[in-house]
Amino acid sequence: MLDPKQLETLSAVAETGGFDKAAKKLFLTQSAISQRIRQLEEQLGQPVLTRTIPAEPTEAGRQLLQYFRQISLMENHLMNTLLPSGPRQEFTTLAIAVNADSLATWFLPAVRPVLDSQPVLLDIMVDDQDYTHELMRAGHVVGCVSTRPQPIQGGDSLFLGHMRYLCVATRDFARRYFPDGVTESGLAAAPTILYSRKDDVHREFLLHTVSYHGGFPYLTVPTPQGFVEITRQGLAYSLLPELMLDDDIAAGRLIDLFPQQHLDIPLYWHHWRVESELSQALADAMARHCQEHLRQ
Amino acid sequence: MLDPKQLETLSAVAETGGFDKAAKKLFLTQSAISQRIRQLEEQLGQPVLTRTIPAEPTEAGRQLLQYFRQISLMENHLMNTLLPSGPRQEFTTLAIAVNADSLATWFLPAVRPVLDSQPVLLDIMVDDQDYTHELMRAGHVVGCVSTRPQPIQGGDSLFLGHMRYLCVATRDFARRYFPDGVTESGLAAAPTILYSRKDDVHREFLLHTVSYHGGFPYLTVPTPQGFVEITRQGLAYSLLPELMLDDDIAAGRLIDLFPQQHLDIPLYWHHWRVESELSQALADAMARHCQEHLRQ
Repeated sequence: MLDPKQLETLSAVAETGGFDKAAKKLFLTQSAISQRIRQLEEQLGQPVLTRTIPAEPTEAGRQLLQYFRQISLMENHLMNTLLPSGPRQEFTTLAIAVNADSLATWFLPAVRPVLDSQPVLLDIMVDDQDYTHELMRAGHVVGCVSTRPQPIQGGDSLFLGHMRYLCVATRDFARRYFPDGVTESGLAAAPTILYSRKDDVHREFLLHTVSYHGGFPYLTVPTPQGFVEITRQGLAYSLLPELMLDDDIAAGRLIDLFPQQHLDIPLYWHHWRVESELSQALADAMARHCQEHLRQ
Repeated sequence: MLDPKQLETLSAVAETGGFDKAAKKLFLTQSAISQRIRQLEEQLGQPVLTRTIPAEPTEAGRQLLQYFRQISLMENHLMNTLLPSGPRQEFTTLAIAVNADSLATWFLPAVRPVLDSQPVLLDIMVDDQDYTHELMRAGHVVGCVSTRPQPIQGGDSLFLGHMRYLCVATRDFARRYFPDGVTESGLAAAPTILYSRKDDVHREFLLHTVSYHGGFPYLTVPTPQGFVEITRQGLAYSLLPELMLDDDIAAGRLIDLFPQQHLDIPLYWHHWRVESELSQALADAMARHCQEHLRQ
């Protein structure tokens, strides 16, 4: 049987990146930390942490962490059922992964009712919506918002809806670069915004909507709010989630460059198949909110 | 003499992470990419890229990239001086690193006059303000916003001002956890927000202001806007940049939990000592804006 104390120690080292910091976190000595990790490794016959700075879990370590997160969730649920909460509540921490655009728009309002009514703390990681499920598979998180429909082995997935993106610019920007509508020469000259240098969404949008294969100048700005601000300032055109647009289009601040076309990204909530009221409450809250706020 | 074509190729591989993607970006065949990299490596007698997926520059590669970025900037300045810009402008891309709170507040408004008046595209990376200068030292960026006062070798640094953080919560949150003011038992029970699990700012703030050494429950949310939203929702208290607070305090939505105390983080703009009008214009624009918007 695995010793939960050893797993907790592994989790603390993986979380803080160091034996010294884990010791501080758990109010233990550093040698107690080393001893527990050594015992765990002896039991398994292989290392669970790399001896790098920061220390990282090995593949075996990752699987242990995933298991530990799952049993923590189950135990916490059990304890919350057995011990009605007093004035000093014990919080459950849920590690989840979300794409940046969801975090900037619907995610926090969607989970707020759960955070309001239950003693839960979220540990949110942000990654590309095509990669969040890797964080879940690796055991870093217990749930994720992802574009992937297929459940991960041992998990369930729930369709939330589509995030719709519109390709927009200020009127002045459109007049300058696209005076006669969107043309190839306009696309080759007009700066847009990518989330990172490796972001292919804009290129694919142009390919699918207007079969444009050429290059285009771009800024890279790694925050959704930066996209909005730069686009509103008239410095670039960009694909923005309609949820971030307020009344920009109705008020004439921004115009839709491709009024007949848009990009719909499907989003799914993935979570481990664990008997947990909390996990269920989160999924329900998201489904309810997205039913109203995402495109179905 | 180093061949700029080879350096451009190295830059494209480092940027895209692969020989195939670099080929697409430069409209070359993959074998032309391989050949250029090989020639560069033969000339230097050492590898410039790791053969991993994604490919990463080696230490030598990083130094070459840094040099390449600098000469690109200088050449672009020269060409802009020699060739007055026609209707189809060539953009200069400037890679810079900024901390998330600056990007969410003063940074874009500060540089907007330069983006408005010059054909420049920003390639923005976000990192912790204590680490951005490492991106510059590694040659990934030509300038950065950092807490570090000392210039990097070959660079200059410019003091921009202090970002002030206030420790705030909703009135209801304060009433629930700190009914008699901030106490140790309140701090042990009240959830706060960290930017990541390794974020030590909150812990240090409590240590310095009220000598509190204990633990505290926390959410982790890796976006400044997430901090603000969760704090306004009354789910946690947190250290927020005063620049993000609008009139929350005046309007009574949030209260300052430590009215006599705050956290001031000094910020510096680092850039390479390169003769470039653009680089100077950026530094001037930032200095001017921060003079007014950051604490001096």
